[in-house]
Amino acid sequence: MANPADVSGLNRLIADGTIRARAIVAVIGKTEGNGGVNDFTRGYFTQSLMHMLAAHLGEPPEVLVKKIPCVLSGGTEGVVSPHFVVFCRDASAPAPAPGATPALAIGVAFSAPPAPETIGRRAHVLQVAESVKSAMREAGISDPADVRFIQLKCPCVTAVAAMQAVAEGKQLITTDPNRSMAYARAAGAFGVALALGELTEADFDEASLLRDFDIYSTRASVSTGIEVTCNEIIVLGNSTSWSGPYRIASQPMADAIDIVPIYKVLEQLGLDAVPQLNASQLSRIAGVFVKCEPDRRGRVRGSRNTMLDDTDINAQRHVRAALGGLVAGVIGDGRLFVSGGAEHQGPDGGGLITVIAAAAGTVARMAEPATGASL
Amino acid sequence: MANPADVSGLNRLIADGTIRARAIVAVIGKTEGNGGVNDFTRGYFTQSLMHMLAAHLGEPPEVLVKKIPCVLSGGTEGVVSPHFVVFCRDASAPAPAPGATPALAIGVAFSAPPAPETIGRRAHVLQVAESVKSAMREAGISDPADVRFIQLKCPCVTAVAAMQAVAEGKQLITTDPNRSMAYARAAGAFGVALALGELTEADFDEASLLRDFDIYSTRASVSTGIEVTCNEIIVLGNSTSWSGPYRIASQPMADAIDIVPIYKVLEQLGLDAVPQLNASQLSRIAGVFVKCEPDRRGRVRGSRNTMLDDTDINAQRHVRAALGGLVAGVIGDGRLFVSGGAEHQGPDGGGLITVIAAAAGTVARMAEPATGASL
Amino acid sequence: MANPADVSGLNRLIADGTIRARAIVAVIGKTEGNGGVNDFTRGYFTQSLMHMLAAHLGEPPEVLVKKIPCVLSGGTEGVVSPHFVVFCRDASAPAPAPGATPALAIGVAFSAPPAPETIGRRAHVLQVAESVKSAMREAGISDPADVRFIQLKCPCVTAVAAMQAVAEGKQLITTDPNRSMAYARAAGAFGVALALGELTEADFDEASLLRDFDIYSTRASVSTGIEVTCNEIIVLGNSTSWSGPYRIASQPMADAIDIVPIYKVLEQLGLDAVPQLNASQLSRIAGVFVKCEPDRRGRVRGSRNTMLDDTDINAQRHVRAALGGLVAGVIGDGRLFVSGGAEHQGPDGGGLITVIAAAAGTVARMAEPATGASL
Amino acid sequence: MANPADVSGLNRLIADGTIRARAIVAVIGKTEGNGGVNDFTRGYFTQSLMHMLAAHLGEPPEVLVKKIPCVLSGGTEGVVSPHFVVFCRDASAPAPAPGATPALAIGVAFSAPPAPETIGRRAHVLQVAESVKSAMREAGISDPADVRFIQLKCPCVTAVAAMQAVAEGKQLITTDPNRSMAYARAAGAFGVALALGELTEADFDEASLLRDFDIYSTRASVSTGIEVTCNEIIVLGNSTSWSGPYRIASQPMADAIDIVPIYKVLEQLGLDAVPQLNASQLSRIAGVFVKCEPDRRGRVRGSRNTMLDDTDINAQRHVRAALGGLVAGVIGDGRLFVSGGAEHQGPDGGGLITVIAAAAGTVARMAEPATGASL
Repeated sequence: MANPADVSGLNRLIADGTIRARAIVAVIGKTEGNGGVNDFTRGYFTQSLMHMLAAHLGEPPEVLVKKIPCVLSGGTEGVVSPHFVVFCRDASAPAPAPGATPALAIGVAFSAPPAPETIGRRAHVLQVAESVKSAMREAGISDPADVRFIQLKCPCVTAVAAMQAVAEGKQLITTDPNRSMAYARAAGAFGVALALGELTEADFDEASLLRDFDIYSTRASVSTGIEVTCNEIIVLGNSTSWSGPYRIASQPMADAIDIVPIYKVLEQLGLDAVPQLNASQLSRIAGVFVKCEPDRRGRVRGSRNTMLDDTDINAQRHVRAALGGLVAGVIGDGRLFVSGGAEHQGPDGGGLITVIAAAAGTVARMAEPATGASL
Repeated sequence: MANPADVSGLNRLIADGTIRARAIVAVIGKTEGNGGVNDFTRGYFTQSLMHMLAAHLGEPPEVLVKKIPCVLSGGTEGVVSPHFVVFCRDASAPAPAPGATPALAIGVAFSAPPAPETIGRRAHVLQVAESVKSAMREAGISDPADVRFIQLKCPCVTAVAAMQAVAEGKQLITTDPNRSMAYARAAGAFGVALALGELTEADFDEASLLRDFDIYSTRASVSTGIEVTCNEIIVLGNSTSWSGPYRIASQPMADAIDIVPIYKVLEQLGLDAVPQLNASQLSRIAGVFVKCEPDRRGRVRGSRNTMLDDTDINAQRHVRAALGGLVAGVIGDGRLFVSGGAEHQGPDGGGLITVIAAAAGTVARMAEPATGASL
Repeated sequence: MANPADVSGLNRLIADGTIRARAIVAVIGKTEGNGGVNDFTRGYFTQSLMHMLAAHLGEPPEVLVKKIPCVLSGGTEGVVSPHFVVFCRDASAPAPAPGATPALAIGVAFSAPPAPETIGRRAHVLQVAESVKSAMREAGISDPADVRFIQLKCPCVTAVAAMQAVAEGKQLITTDPNRSMAYARAAGAFGVALALGELTEADFDEASLLRDFDIYSTRASVSTGIEVTCNEIIVLGNSTSWSGPYRIASQPMADAIDIVPIYKVLEQLGLDAVPQLNASQLSRIAGVFVKCEPDRRGRVRGSRNTMLDDTDINAQRHVRAALGGLVAGVIGDGRLFVSGGAEHQGPDGGGLITVIAAAAGTVARMAEPATGASL
Repeated sequence: MANPADVSGLNRLIADGTIRARAIVAVIGKTEGNGGVNDFTRGYFTQSLMHMLAAHLGEPPEVLVKKIPCVLSGGTEGVVSPHFVVFCRDASAPAPAPGATPALAIGVAFSAPPAPETIGRRAHVLQVAESVKSAMREAGISDPADVRFIQLKCPCVTAVAAMQAVAEGKQLITTDPNRSMAYARAAGAFGVALALGELTEADFDEASLLRDFDIYSTRASVSTGIEVTCNEIIVLGNSTSWSGPYRIASQPMADAIDIVPIYKVLEQLGLDAVPQLNASQLSRIAGVFVKCEPDRRGRVRGSRNTMLDDTDINAQRHVRAALGGLVAGVIGDGRLFVSGGAEHQGPDGGGLITVIAAAAGTVARMAEPATGASL
């Protein structure tokens, strides 16, 4: 991936028959912008990808973008490498053998567009929870314990939309667009926690969002953006209804230097990484997803850092660079999805680590792009 | 250390008698600037420190600054925490018992000011080598193999000095100040390599600097700045002539995600860190020093990163953030000296990791400040 | 001024008798930091200045810093040049001749430290108004119409102070430090407006601050910082009680491209600048002070700009660079005090321009430093 | 233009018949990236524009991009507003009346791709000069004095291309991509100067590029980028062979605060701007183009600025912000093309200002987009 518009690698794989364009169900990736409001590399990638797929599928880009969730996180600080992971589903694959190990399962869902006045509120939480359940059904996962990772994209309220809503007499939770983004992420994380049974409806009220940071999901990764109009959901887990070489594991991280869960996730996938994956182990890795957040208290284990006070570099860029360095050191590769904005996604000041790996003896396609599971 | 001028911690330790101001022989630390040309946090710290010490020692700041090497690296990206390490030497300490384990030894040296036309040239290399040997003698280290870490500060040629030198008919290796800084670092690294026997005079000529990156020292950490007029050298090693609880170990790193040498260094100090130091082990750490450099080829293990092409964030800030995250994850602490500009200091695209730890059963003072060895 | 610690120019002028150290009553300047929370160039300058003055005055720096208001704004974007203006007062100057043109007058005041719970509230506004009146008395200005420029530094509530105050059961207007800074600036501007009769006590309540932007002072320039514990005030105006060659004029600016008031201010000082001051006119300029703010609506005269959405460059840096370019183009010099954070200081989205010039036929000392008026 | 992909304004004008897609001959604009190597907003805009035009013209985007020069400059610092100017040519327009005022004329040219080893060399200069003459012929301009502005895009040598060329035994002027960009801009400027008779072949040799800054064109605006493979040229001037309401004027600027030429250019177009264009005058402006460069000496009229030493903000961003503020203040609008990298384009440390305006009594379409002249 030479730049945000470079989808030539995937195009080649489709052209040579390695990947069937029709099989692509979702894309998650990192692009090399600043990850902030004025990061246009996400849109540039999506436009390029959809035009390319349109040529293969004979459907217009504007239709495809509403069918294939495409979640990009901007910001490839430090050793993080721009890349994307392509999830494919082969409907013609043979049914799994009875007693087979659960394999990577995927389900996607698009909700109805939430009204501006519901965004970041209880109604939004409930709507997300419903969509998560719908995506779980599509993935054939009935036990929430089998879900390992949920990537969500939630809409937020722009300044213009806020002004219009206020003019219509609606009561928004906030009129500040940045604050709206944080509330949308919080509602997404609460919705996931609710759907997975990490939280009950009785356990929270609206005031809990962005306030009670003891409430969190250990499997939610939420992003938000003005380009999204409905909640887009990708559910990943392991299921006996699916076949294929891929497995997924995930762990919460207690803080930005919590290296232990990284090794634990790898161990769960049968990868003994200490201190670093060797080439053969690395060849089994299909995707690594990290969610993190600068600690609101400005400290990690008592030592002050300068992320939150830096007027020159956004705090999210600081924390992505640090986490990227840490996880790359264990994995031995910089092709990591490292994303900030982790409110209620993992422990306060911490985050999540998720890895998808092929079974021992098989090789993942962790080129650009990597391919996912088949039914 | 609440800000770059905050030397209150050390002041308190001197006031309460924990540290004798007279015993301080060197200071190495990180301040929270951008680490670039316009980073004034280094000067602000030094001014604050010297004024504080002047009050204790009864000598003016401008005299002290020429006696106590004070090496600051700007840039506390990611989880790196502003801090400084104070090296003390207690001349009244009892001689080490025969057969005792070698203890941390320190020696410092200030060379004569090199002429602008020699900076970055062979003459500069030879001058540094001489000063390193002088500092080794002061440290009581005769075998270069006992040297583990040499921190150097070399002068460079400013634009103004360059113009003047050219007007006087002198031939500079470069008139570009940034290039001059790189040449000065290269000359410093070559000088260290020469003094340590990693390189012979026959092995290189002037054209080797900044060109032949197979030549490097595994124990040099060189910085440069317009505020320095002579080569300032701090030699650290282990020696049977010294007593005290501290030991030092160091290793080269092959690239920016080479986690293996970090564990190796800790192991050499009797610290089994896998995957992370526990609280008791951490209490023995007195200082961690990392030298790193964005890979000139724009890739780490084949994966493209965006450090060198980023117009918004300087490449050195990217790499410091990544390395800081990695090393902090293993150590379990963000108080790390992570410094860029590692030309010829460790393998090309890689760097160095050095750790000072107290012996098992003793506790290092890794507060701000930590204290060092005694003779 | 070669760097933020360079006070050698003023030191020379004191040493050669041009300026009497005892005559210095205030300093206003620009330093080359980022102007944000982590800008330490302001403190570095102040430390350097006070140490230098201490050597001349025989008083310790920590005493001087409480007697001589020293207002620094960080951020010399674009063509803005680091510099500072020194205001001196010669108590032995002869009384002005009857009927003489009013001359530049200066008064300073330090309030008692406001309690954290009053900061940004009505009590803070009233306290500032009292201090402004006190500084006006010191300046010998009784008619508010004679006041042209009031530079204020107000304390704000740090995160730590906020936590402590909340623990003590106190009700803060906000616990967010950045928000606290904005409230402190707003209270300062309201206090000035009140003292100058631009506002009456009946015209506002606490909810007006940071909300009703039709309320503003046309002569307030307020900064805030964690290093300040009380309101520090410098009042500048023209008065028949003062003599000396300097005059001051000021005008509000409607938006960030409002060039008209710049010419108007110069005209009021007898300087016909169209389109740019010539060398002789420029030699009369002693100080230029600009206050500005990115427009909250993201537009200037209907055209969208990207200041507020830029994750890489802080909006205040954008607007200072633009205003600096504009004013430098008219004045013909980059030594301008251009400062952001202009809530309620001039029209919403606009700001203020103030110029001090020597009378025709005299030359201002707009070197580093420039000198001010005498009684 | 809400973002770099927003070509909806032009699409609407084409849809409603205001602009014929077939008439579009060139586009020049500003996008809101950082203007550096990793600015992808230029490519994103071009991709979006070409897809949109492809729908109207029935030709694929990859063909159109080679027929319609589309010059984007990234970086809308300060008050500069993202926008683009569309140049149209109506071949069916009636011939101009004899004796009519010369009207805006436009010609474009694409050269053959220069070989890597010629880029930045004499051969490149001569090639550009030939292409300029060809574009002048297309514009119907025979007298170089009638040319007012030449916008050029020149290819440069990427790191990869450099390595390949060296491997093939070719001798490049530099293997450093950034340096290659500077040489390409220099060659472009020399080529324009040669074509316009500002320079003769005897006046320079290869060593003059990037060295002898007394050689410059007063009408060249050159950009470079890795996305360009040949020299793309847009020549603008006034010609009696063209009709239509538009006229163009340009002036060199001596330094970054030289306001005088801005007024002079407006005066040449019959616009008395002092101190700022009024609404009626502004309605006649169709495009404003500014070329500028941070002064290599770090000073403007003797006052030090910090552009070149800033590790956080690229110097080009500083200077664009300052120039944008200055020119916007005179014009009264932020829709300005302000571009850096002005080596040999205007006086050393200065730049150029060019304005296109409609004749008195007519209104320019300075919306997004503005339209140009017709034959």
